[in-house]
Amino acid sequence: MYNLLKGKRGIITGALDQNSIAWKVAEKAHEQGAKFVLTNAPIAMRMGQINELAEKTGSEIIPADATNVDDIANLYEKAQEVLGGKIDFVLHSIGMSVNIRKKISYTESNYDYFMKGIDVSAMSLHKMLSVAKKMDVINEGGSVVALTYMAAQRTYPFYTDMADIKAMLESIARSFGYHYGVEKKVRINTVSQSPTKTTAGTGIKGFDAFYDYADSIAPLGNADAESCADYCITLFSDLTRMVTMQNLFHDGGYSSTGVSAEVMEKFSTEE
Amino acid sequence: MYNLLKGKRGIITGALDQNSIAWKVAEKAHEQGAKFVLTNAPIAMRMGQINELAEKTGSEIIPADATNVDDIANLYEKAQEVLGGKIDFVLHSIGMSVNIRKKISYTESNYDYFMKGIDVSAMSLHKMLSVAKKMDVINEGGSVVALTYMAAQRTYPFYTDMADIKAMLESIARSFGYHYGVEKKVRINTVSQSPTKTTAGTGIKGFDAFYDYADSIAPLGNADAESCADYCITLFSDLTRMVTMQNLFHDGGYSSTGVSAEVMEKFSTEE
Amino acid sequence: MYNLLKGKRGIITGALDQNSIAWKVAEKAHEQGAKFVLTNAPIAMRMGQINELAEKTGSEIIPADATNVDDIANLYEKAQEVLGGKIDFVLHSIGMSVNIRKKISYTESNYDYFMKGIDVSAMSLHKMLSVAKKMDVINEGGSVVALTYMAAQRTYPFYTDMADIKAMLESIARSFGYHYGVEKKVRINTVSQSPTKTTAGTGIKGFDAFYDYADSIAPLGNADAESCADYCITLFSDLTRMVTMQNLFHDGGYSSTGVSAEVMEKFSTEE
Amino acid sequence: MYNLLKGKRGIITGALDQNSIAWKVAEKAHEQGAKFVLTNAPIAMRMGQINELAEKTGSEIIPADATNVDDIANLYEKAQEVLGGKIDFVLHSIGMSVNIRKKISYTESNYDYFMKGIDVSAMSLHKMLSVAKKMDVINEGGSVVALTYMAAQRTYPFYTDMADIKAMLESIARSFGYHYGVEKKVRINTVSQSPTKTTAGTGIKGFDAFYDYADSIAPLGNADAESCADYCITLFSDLTRMVTMQNLFHDGGYSSTGVSAEVMEKFSTEE
Repeated sequence: MYNLLKGKRGIITGALDQNSIAWKVAEKAHEQGAKFVLTNAPIAMRMGQINELAEKTGSEIIPADATNVDDIANLYEKAQEVLGGKIDFVLHSIGMSVNIRKKISYTESNYDYFMKGIDVSAMSLHKMLSVAKKMDVINEGGSVVALTYMAAQRTYPFYTDMADIKAMLESIARSFGYHYGVEKKVRINTVSQSPTKTTAGTGIKGFDAFYDYADSIAPLGNADAESCADYCITLFSDLTRMVTMQNLFHDGGYSSTGVSAEVMEKFSTEE
Repeated sequence: MYNLLKGKRGIITGALDQNSIAWKVAEKAHEQGAKFVLTNAPIAMRMGQINELAEKTGSEIIPADATNVDDIANLYEKAQEVLGGKIDFVLHSIGMSVNIRKKISYTESNYDYFMKGIDVSAMSLHKMLSVAKKMDVINEGGSVVALTYMAAQRTYPFYTDMADIKAMLESIARSFGYHYGVEKKVRINTVSQSPTKTTAGTGIKGFDAFYDYADSIAPLGNADAESCADYCITLFSDLTRMVTMQNLFHDGGYSSTGVSAEVMEKFSTEE
Repeated sequence: MYNLLKGKRGIITGALDQNSIAWKVAEKAHEQGAKFVLTNAPIAMRMGQINELAEKTGSEIIPADATNVDDIANLYEKAQEVLGGKIDFVLHSIGMSVNIRKKISYTESNYDYFMKGIDVSAMSLHKMLSVAKKMDVINEGGSVVALTYMAAQRTYPFYTDMADIKAMLESIARSFGYHYGVEKKVRINTVSQSPTKTTAGTGIKGFDAFYDYADSIAPLGNADAESCADYCITLFSDLTRMVTMQNLFHDGGYSSTGVSAEVMEKFSTEE
Repeated sequence: MYNLLKGKRGIITGALDQNSIAWKVAEKAHEQGAKFVLTNAPIAMRMGQINELAEKTGSEIIPADATNVDDIANLYEKAQEVLGGKIDFVLHSIGMSVNIRKKISYTESNYDYFMKGIDVSAMSLHKMLSVAKKMDVINEGGSVVALTYMAAQRTYPFYTDMADIKAMLESIARSFGYHYGVEKKVRINTVSQSPTKTTAGTGIKGFDAFYDYADSIAPLGNADAESCADYCITLFSDLTRMVTMQNLFHDGGYSSTGVSAEVMEKFSTEE
């Protein structure tokens, strides 16, 4: 509505279905005047659904495995062709833990799965940035946002190896943000989002109880996917051009709340 | 230009002259469609200059001493009259240290001056919020931003007692953010800005050398007042409605950079 | 038992009764071979009890109001006389909020009480350090520890204005730590302790429920006063001579735990 | 001297030569009454030197590749045999980046090398802990310390991929610290040490200039290997039994200092 991204070209990863944060980002970016391509790993694609999003937002789908630098190079080439120029913004919304899927406890993590999780969920950001920098794909002042979760700072037992992987992801954003910032004023930030009822989120054991707990801690309640998408839009816009290498909590105040009166009551009345 | 604040009503403190961040915020808020009043302590007012801003932005000036709850109540009453309704955003940009002005070293701080600095620069935020909450002046989902500096986390010797005062200011934002968030979904954040060539900033001894140092650390260079104002606009907008109780660095990446290649060269060539 | 503080001279504030952390620090410092004086504000003294501690540890009591620089100077003079030389360690364990005592809610804090709380609980550290530096009372490499609480980082509604005051206290430790470190290698740290069943702690409304909540989050459970005292001993010893300007969590892992399985079960079974 | 570790059994990794922090930890642990085994990857062993340390401290050397769970299991088995019981403390001092060795810039990191670095420098901690937990090797209340560097929080361009790897290492310490804490009260912390003139440290390009820079920022100067070893001793002792899941800066105050007067002068006089 505000045309905040008018004339901007983007790449949005990770839109699986209508619950995805990336899906909402695509809708919002479209509303704000951006053009973009959608991309997903070939094996993660649910073509029926993502086609619907592509149609709705007038965008093309370019499959790419973000762990594969050739796929990434191909993605960038085609994206520039389709969009008619260099890229202004990138959303990294890629995360997968086989250890979580297989309900393996953290202390007994399978190391092949752990390494796979790192490659898919963290190294993919480095690869996307490295290829982008080599190919000089991103416009000066461009903006990259990767989605993360506070388990990178504090332990949530059920989040298992993704906690460590997200810590690495956030570090990659900082490290690369330095180099890309110096060279091209490209900014790289991570958004640390409330637990969100996405298809990925709800696959985690104990998610529902935790969702409610976080919701009763956060003064504004948990932030939903739509508000997260709005926040990403501000980070893609020129209004935040000097914000970089930050991990930004988008969580209704959860991260700064030790305990809420609401949770305390729960503990009091039980005694 | 984007009408991000269309229909919103605000209060902007601290616009002293064209170098003030608050001055830029007023200009940007006006561009984005907001209506607001300007306010300053009677003794800090430079009427010639602030009149110019008021005229340019079609806003009224309501003098108020932010350490005085009666003045604050009067400000709110008049602001609502002038603007025609409750307030949507507030900028707190008030800071003053007599110890700095008088070039008193930190370890020999005068305690009356220190307490005065706390009252003016930190407690004023609590007072503005407390009176606002009692009078129910701020609309649901409203946004309050207070400007701060990273000395609250790391020591900068020349910043003396303002470091401790800013630490308190940031804590007040979190503490009050909890309560106001639970009750009215009002959000309160602090923006931790690069050293800025404002009239206040440049009054600090050693400011110029430090400005250059910070500029050579930050990958994007120091953020200027105008970009800071743009960032504040995003925080006043509905797009950040779930961001609260955060201290947000607006500093070109300075806070996340340990050392830059540029600074390292300075240390290398000297040997 | 280890003679970790053999030959060291100290000043210990805040030992009210056997539940005080400062009381335990005195006992432990005595065990480790230190000599020290005890001090408290005249109005806070419970002479019967502190006399018992003094006798047990062979130490003298020198009353001093830590908000009064003359009292502090007198304390230092007498302490050096009694102990036979300069001071090696200081424990700051002084905190008082009239707003908490009077059960005034945070958003309606009385500002005179708030300022009183700042003076007693935070500025007292600055005053003790400032007078010490002027009088050159602390030996090179000496160590100062101030007790604090995590409300300085995250909001705990019941902690009201002490949250902001502790934030300032921690900042004073950093700020002064810089100056005293450069000049005399004196180190200044804060220890951020679990909720503790001291006389002061249990006076806070809702303390018991919160104590249990924190205990069920912390993987090791809440840290008690005795273990806190042991930790302070390590910080007073030469083994930590390069640790300064840090806020050190002593909390059984609470600060780094987002949620525990135990708390999650509570939320799960209720549904 | 203090017998702080009397009766305790440990495992110390990473003692390469006399400059190693691990070497100093071994010397100090020996002084404090501990018994321990030394271990290193077979390919990293400099037998002449480590034999000297083993002799001096009356300890055995058990080679083990910390990326190999079978080697780790064997290490634990033999260590318990040699030491006569379960383990009380473990030092993880293992780090290696092929990208740094080969002077590959961060943005062009080789991903095989990156993954190798992760496996050696971060996952090795997980593996050591996972095998320990399965074999129930560590005594209740035992203490694990892993050495890290502040590049995990702020970017130091020359530290390249080790920054991200250390971020993961610190996260693993937190994550595992939760589980091992709940089950056995085993504590896991990371010590974030000043740049240190170890053989590993000085291999990094630009290390000397950076060393001097950090030294002129830190109020106490850079912490050396010996003081770091002393600090590790306190963390292995029972006096810190409630400290876990923390990243502890041992750096002479560097991490909390924005800029020093000394560095400022350098910037001032050059203009």
